[in-house]
Amino acid sequence: MAVNLPPLPGLLPVPGIRLGTAMAGIRKKNRRDLVVIECAPATLAAAVFTQNRFCAAPVLIARKHLDATPPRALLINTGCANAGTGTPGMDDAGACCEGLARNMGLEVNEILPFSTGVIGERLPVERILAGLPDCIGTLDESGWVEAAHGIMTTDTLPKGSSRQAAIAGTNVTVTGIAKGAGMICPNMATMLGFVATDASVGPVVLNALVRDAVGASFNRITVDGDTSTNDSCILLATGRAGNEVIERPEGAAYQELLRLVTEVFTELAQAIVRDAEGATKFITIEVSGGRDEDECLEVARTIAHSPLVKTAFFASDPNWGRILAAVGRARIERLDVASVSIFLNDICMARNGARATEYTEAQGQRAMAGPEIVLRVELGDGRACSRLWTCDLSHEYVRINAEYRT
Amino acid sequence: MAVNLPPLPGLLPVPGIRLGTAMAGIRKKNRRDLVVIECAPATLAAAVFTQNRFCAAPVLIARKHLDATPPRALLINTGCANAGTGTPGMDDAGACCEGLARNMGLEVNEILPFSTGVIGERLPVERILAGLPDCIGTLDESGWVEAAHGIMTTDTLPKGSSRQAAIAGTNVTVTGIAKGAGMICPNMATMLGFVATDASVGPVVLNALVRDAVGASFNRITVDGDTSTNDSCILLATGRAGNEVIERPEGAAYQELLRLVTEVFTELAQAIVRDAEGATKFITIEVSGGRDEDECLEVARTIAHSPLVKTAFFASDPNWGRILAAVGRARIERLDVASVSIFLNDICMARNGARATEYTEAQGQRAMAGPEIVLRVELGDGRACSRLWTCDLSHEYVRINAEYRT
Repeated sequence: MAVNLPPLPGLLPVPGIRLGTAMAGIRKKNRRDLVVIECAPATLAAAVFTQNRFCAAPVLIARKHLDATPPRALLINTGCANAGTGTPGMDDAGACCEGLARNMGLEVNEILPFSTGVIGERLPVERILAGLPDCIGTLDESGWVEAAHGIMTTDTLPKGSSRQAAIAGTNVTVTGIAKGAGMICPNMATMLGFVATDASVGPVVLNALVRDAVGASFNRITVDGDTSTNDSCILLATGRAGNEVIERPEGAAYQELLRLVTEVFTELAQAIVRDAEGATKFITIEVSGGRDEDECLEVARTIAHSPLVKTAFFASDPNWGRILAAVGRARIERLDVASVSIFLNDICMARNGARATEYTEAQGQRAMAGPEIVLRVELGDGRACSRLWTCDLSHEYVRINAEYRT
Repeated sequence: MAVNLPPLPGLLPVPGIRLGTAMAGIRKKNRRDLVVIECAPATLAAAVFTQNRFCAAPVLIARKHLDATPPRALLINTGCANAGTGTPGMDDAGACCEGLARNMGLEVNEILPFSTGVIGERLPVERILAGLPDCIGTLDESGWVEAAHGIMTTDTLPKGSSRQAAIAGTNVTVTGIAKGAGMICPNMATMLGFVATDASVGPVVLNALVRDAVGASFNRITVDGDTSTNDSCILLATGRAGNEVIERPEGAAYQELLRLVTEVFTELAQAIVRDAEGATKFITIEVSGGRDEDECLEVARTIAHSPLVKTAFFASDPNWGRILAAVGRARIERLDVASVSIFLNDICMARNGARATEYTEAQGQRAMAGPEIVLRVELGDGRACSRLWTCDLSHEYVRINAEYRT
């Protein structure tokens, strides 16, 4: 079902990062469901986590460990989110971290745990511990593709992205993987995203990179408006590229690296929308002419979350009336409906709050026919603009989410 | 598909109100799609309209006419919303009002227009004008049931409610009809609601009645979170009951009348949810333990709008994890997740933010099996509470809204 999501490209190794996987039988047999990402000593890490107040146990522990010391290994399982599990869930996540620390000769707070899957069920600690030797035995710099498979839940395809470029004369690599297909909403990192670079950067720069790149990518997608309890996105920097350390989030080298990292983040974020549960269309929503970026984003999100707009897209129905109705209920302070225009690809459907005189239904239907659609809303009230990516709401979304867990 | 919505009961006539209908062929042949509601002289009216900034032309005109003078007739069409139609749409609605005024010997601003149906298409003025004589010819105090049919769109059943009670010793009647099945969200009147009473009340009281009753009924339902461009709810008071005029919104007589009006409003609002597009379950969401009512409502709405919660209800899946995740992302200032409990009917599924120790999946599945479900969330942070009514998200909702207009 994925919309124009190409097969996983070759993913470039990042010196200092090794990945291993195992089939631990957490929820299903015979599939990779346990991943270890090992970071070389001196690797720095920065992360963003879900803004849902119901954080999963692994999110709480990963935050705490990350505050204490740079990580040496990430432990990721799919099949069980370990969320809504209270104190026993914290103990379970802790036991898994201890197991991996023991196996790898590390301190427990050098391990960051990540989980995805069903909420409210206990983590099968014994099976995870039993899977660790396989993960460690397969650790390899070329393990990115296997790891991309190992973190999938309802994803139909693995998601990864790689870029390489010269930053101030030194070749730098950025590679990342992500997963997520439902319970996806802006204002968070996506479900799980792991990106690494060999660039040499200071901690201030790494934090700025992850914040700026997430703001332009994972925080600009929505599938169903539901923010997950487990969202985590982490950026690792091993410093092995040999460039002069970038210490401040400004200047040409920082901008170059930010562009590279943002490209990888954006490709991963878009891949999540392309492979969203039941998606048949990949929709870019651009809102311009607002007074500030937040206002434009709020309008874009209201459109993106409207079930009526989403079902119209599923039906390839250029129903601009539903889009207009969504704009009209957006929670923004001021809206002059007589200034609003709506474009589908390059076709103006509505101008000044009403049907554009030159618009024909046939034009709209042609624009709707393809799987890639740009919806542009011009508010006519300012100079700010914002953009997000979303998908339609199909029978398949209902089927997947009605049948999941049964 | 409607959930436990009984056939339309007998609707009591309201002295001073006559209703007539016609088949004007606005969108489909051979169905009642045009309604006139005539009010006797001295009838007072109060109304609430959509809070969507994209108001339909009839909403703008009805507001203006209502400000100028008490109405003598309401003109309602289904099949075309006359929204997003700009100046031509205003002219069309004005021409229909003029036509009815001419036919009935009234002033044009004594007519209130209401429209429902597809957004963005022009009103077929000629067909509406041609249908007016039939509407006028069939005007009758017993016309409520025909009118309830005449305002339906994707509704599968007509919706009406009647109450009669003695107010300060005088028998008073309240009767109303409503329509709506999609694009239904709180903070508005519902799609269209027309309620009349023969009680004698002053204008201050009538405004208080409609505000209080709508706040407890139509503003407490949501189907899909989409606020319509045409929502209108009007309360007429003919003063024919002969009770002593209620002049102030306080005291026993006011409270009695408010109870009666609220019962009718609530029955109509619930009927809209029971007959919501694709609904298979009628869900009452009660949120208590918040710091104020708004906070409780925000949590209730976040749950009610979550596609993941709605599809779980459709699947009869007691997936409390999705409910917990929705509570966690509600836009409220403070949330102590360790104090949150979740109940399905009388079963405690989650306590203190985690699965209740005594809870079994079998209990949850039994509670989910029926078509009427009460979901109760206790925030543990205050003494306020709030309640709303919603439904599940089914294949049928997607089918209806993907196929509508095609």
